[in-house]
Amino acid sequence: MSTAEEPTSLTTADADRTVRGKSEGSPADGGEMGPETGREAIIRAARRAFTLKPYAEVTMRGIAAAAGVSPSLIVKRFGTKEALFNTVLDFRPAAAELFGAPPAELGRHLVLTMVDLRDRLRGDPLLRVVFSLGIEDERTLLRARFREQITDHLTDVLDGPDARLRAELIAGQLLGLGATLSLHRPDGATAGTTAERLADLYAPGIQHLVDGS
Amino acid sequence: MSTAEEPTSLTTADADRTVRGKSEGSPADGGEMGPETGREAIIRAARRAFTLKPYAEVTMRGIAAAAGVSPSLIVKRFGTKEALFNTVLDFRPAAAELFGAPPAELGRHLVLTMVDLRDRLRGDPLLRVVFSLGIEDERTLLRARFREQITDHLTDVLDGPDARLRAELIAGQLLGLGATLSLHRPDGATAGTTAERLADLYAPGIQHLVDGS
Repeated sequence: MSTAEEPTSLTTADADRTVRGKSEGSPADGGEMGPETGREAIIRAARRAFTLKPYAEVTMRGIAAAAGVSPSLIVKRFGTKEALFNTVLDFRPAAAELFGAPPAELGRHLVLTMVDLRDRLRGDPLLRVVFSLGIEDERTLLRARFREQITDHLTDVLDGPDARLRAELIAGQLLGLGATLSLHRPDGATAGTTAERLADLYAPGIQHLVDGS
Repeated sequence: MSTAEEPTSLTTADADRTVRGKSEGSPADGGEMGPETGREAIIRAARRAFTLKPYAEVTMRGIAAAAGVSPSLIVKRFGTKEALFNTVLDFRPAAAELFGAPPAELGRHLVLTMVDLRDRLRGDPLLRVVFSLGIEDERTLLRARFREQITDHLTDVLDGPDARLRAELIAGQLLGLGATLSLHRPDGATAGTTAERLADLYAPGIQHLVDGS
């Protein structure tokens, strides 16, 4: 393992696995006997490829090589490249959990849910969109997806004036929380404290934006 | 230009240029006649390479090719690879501006300075460290640099308990502000508002962490 940070960042948000359950990814899927199933290896390799490269440069063959499976297995299980992209880079499962609290409690709920999602997914549910800022890609699919599934969703949840502006800033605070938790692992102060303490400190700023006052 | 976001993200923080002034980068430096001087092209190419690749994979030859200059010009002007790294990836000029206000005013000052720095540098002064999370690099120099020059500096500025924890969270809010401004350009609500309005909304959360109450 080359770095402590990398796994948290790039094995982000295996939300698909959370929703579907691990049982679907059996060794028989990909012929692997290791701790990671073929399905998981494909999802991981695809997420990494789509995050770090322009969409046009991502190939099924490259993902297959990285995952240690055959290209035909990926096509059989996921369909086209675009279908694979849609499967592995979907922010909606994370959004459903993050935004599942009434506005009066949303600030604290967001911080606690972010920490919980990061633990369960062994990665950040949102941060991969920031990596994509480093990529020249005319389609910028990942950013469009984030805006639709996170920012627009959050805008709909908020009452009061400037809902979209406040939603963009709340999205920023969530990205910033993930960024600093990843940057300051494993020996940082944020890594050594409780989710409750993080919420005490970080949630008021978010709640200020939720309230819009 | 392939994307609207890319320039803001990766041409980040030409703090070196700000400090030394543009006059040093004349076309004669690199034999270029375009709007970007040889010195600027080298800095831009080096920053991009160090941000997107492991340190060990970055070569002077590759930077020279990307900048359209000869490798010997880079060595002459910047010295070794490590010296070049230290020149182009230095957060201290940004830190000096960001943290140059008394604690009681720091929240608002940080937001206004972030917006101002992004305008002047045509890029974000901090965000490149997040791109580096996607890279497997044993040295993780960029992250160490950020922790020393941003988080530690901020910790020293803060009074009261849990200064390091609060500093990490403030660093997160600054990274998050840059991330959301970059993500939601050019047509987002944050892109269409004033720095003062952004500060009204975003600074209270930062100030809460500065105050530590």
